[in-house]
Amino acid sequence: MGKTSFLQKLKAAAARNNSLLCFGLDPVPARLPEAVMGKDNPVLYFNKKLIDATADLVCAYKPNFAFYGALGEAGWPTLKATLEHIPSHIPVLVDAKVGDIGSTAERYAHMFFGELGADALTVNPYMGSDAVAPFLEYSTGALEASERCVFLICLTSNPGADDFETLPVDGCPLYRRVAEKAVEWSAIAPCGLVVGATRPQAIRGLRELAPELPFLIPGVGTQGGDLESAVQQGQLASGGGLLINASRGVMYASSGPDFESAARHAAHTLRAEINRFRSP
Amino acid sequence: MGKTSFLQKLKAAAARNNSLLCFGLDPVPARLPEAVMGKDNPVLYFNKKLIDATADLVCAYKPNFAFYGALGEAGWPTLKATLEHIPSHIPVLVDAKVGDIGSTAERYAHMFFGELGADALTVNPYMGSDAVAPFLEYSTGALEASERCVFLICLTSNPGADDFETLPVDGCPLYRRVAEKAVEWSAIAPCGLVVGATRPQAIRGLRELAPELPFLIPGVGTQGGDLESAVQQGQLASGGGLLINASRGVMYASSGPDFESAARHAAHTLRAEINRFRSP
Repeated sequence: MGKTSFLQKLKAAAARNNSLLCFGLDPVPARLPEAVMGKDNPVLYFNKKLIDATADLVCAYKPNFAFYGALGEAGWPTLKATLEHIPSHIPVLVDAKVGDIGSTAERYAHMFFGELGADALTVNPYMGSDAVAPFLEYSTGALEASERCVFLICLTSNPGADDFETLPVDGCPLYRRVAEKAVEWSAIAPCGLVVGATRPQAIRGLRELAPELPFLIPGVGTQGGDLESAVQQGQLASGGGLLINASRGVMYASSGPDFESAARHAAHTLRAEINRFRSP
Repeated sequence: MGKTSFLQKLKAAAARNNSLLCFGLDPVPARLPEAVMGKDNPVLYFNKKLIDATADLVCAYKPNFAFYGALGEAGWPTLKATLEHIPSHIPVLVDAKVGDIGSTAERYAHMFFGELGADALTVNPYMGSDAVAPFLEYSTGALEASERCVFLICLTSNPGADDFETLPVDGCPLYRRVAEKAVEWSAIAPCGLVVGATRPQAIRGLRELAPELPFLIPGVGTQGGDLESAVQQGQLASGGGLLINASRGVMYASSGPDFESAARHAAHTLRAEINRFRSP
């Protein structure tokens, strides 16, 4: 083989860059800095500059597919070229939150793992085991299934999480049922959980329930989540097992010609804040 | 305005073609008939032939995005050209089952409604109201929000539906909570429900709960759902309000050079079977 799995890559990048910061590459054309507007592909140029500015500060990159799909025909080549620009020792987690019946899920697995070469992917668990299985079992492309990681949407950082995710099922909130299943599914291939930083109490409980799964934690920036609690409740004894995501706060740190250095500064600051709360 | 909404278009197409059949255009390169293999874009050629063969037999077309995403860079132009080939009086429901926090959901809405021009879209409800709202509110592009339709994944046709969808929340299955919310959301913009044909009992209950929402019903073909019950339990008094989906059973009715006439025959037969169970 000689391939490095997502989890190995994540661990190595986190150690090398002393970082649990996952940078969400979610470009919106209307928010691009003036300085990139004249370029051939402004979004791609912007992404490349941001990657260059942060590659020694992050443990992973997380492009969300919606931001590329919204570019229409330019979306796929822009995303593909963005991923190619990411140094190969930093893992790529594609955020798409897909999920469908088996034969369709297999096509999504082929799209994100086979065609795009993602190391990890977010999946929506609502449709249950057989809708998740094709992602756990997809075994062609650069990595085997056991070398990737499937992050299940568990408890999200938005207010609407209370509509369904936190509803009580026999006294136990639905999102904990999802976490139980993810632990079960991780016997097939590595799984992780997406848990919003806006719910620190829940993070502690989920860490007890899933003591070994990596947690992707969005919601610390614009969404106002509690970074200290998220890190302290979510981290493993080793001080790892977390990907703290930031997107807009880093990407759009400045809209001026200093956007690169501003993004670097924002990533640097957030990395330090996260590290302040990590176990020694 | 002068635009025709999804629901108007659906009603008109269903009447004109005397059909509740929704044809899922889900092409898999490995399953294409020999006869299309030499063409410039075999998937597009196949789709066009299938559209030509069925355009007087269906009430809607439903391409699932996964099957186009899996084509890599060719996916977007193939899907776009497929949609352009669909006669403008037949509505297009894009199946993507997406859902994300507000600012990301807005990008998905822009992708499917703005860039692709879908009349309707499937959305995964797991993340709750504010993850669904951007789809209900997206108001640029060819149609206003009130002229589109958002189909919420409610109770699916796969076995894994029992992992979460049917779990009891205070004695009421989760999928009914989703349906209740969809009824609520339909005050903002038209909503529909995705309900698998494999669950006829549930269809009756959902029709009582959501007496006016259109139901997209997959699972009658390969998945072995009960067509008679699905139609009888799901239809409105008018004999409408349903989209009975078929994909593989029509697309791959023959892998020989007669694939077009075989697809037409399969669609024709299924339309007649559906109509046999409709209210007069």
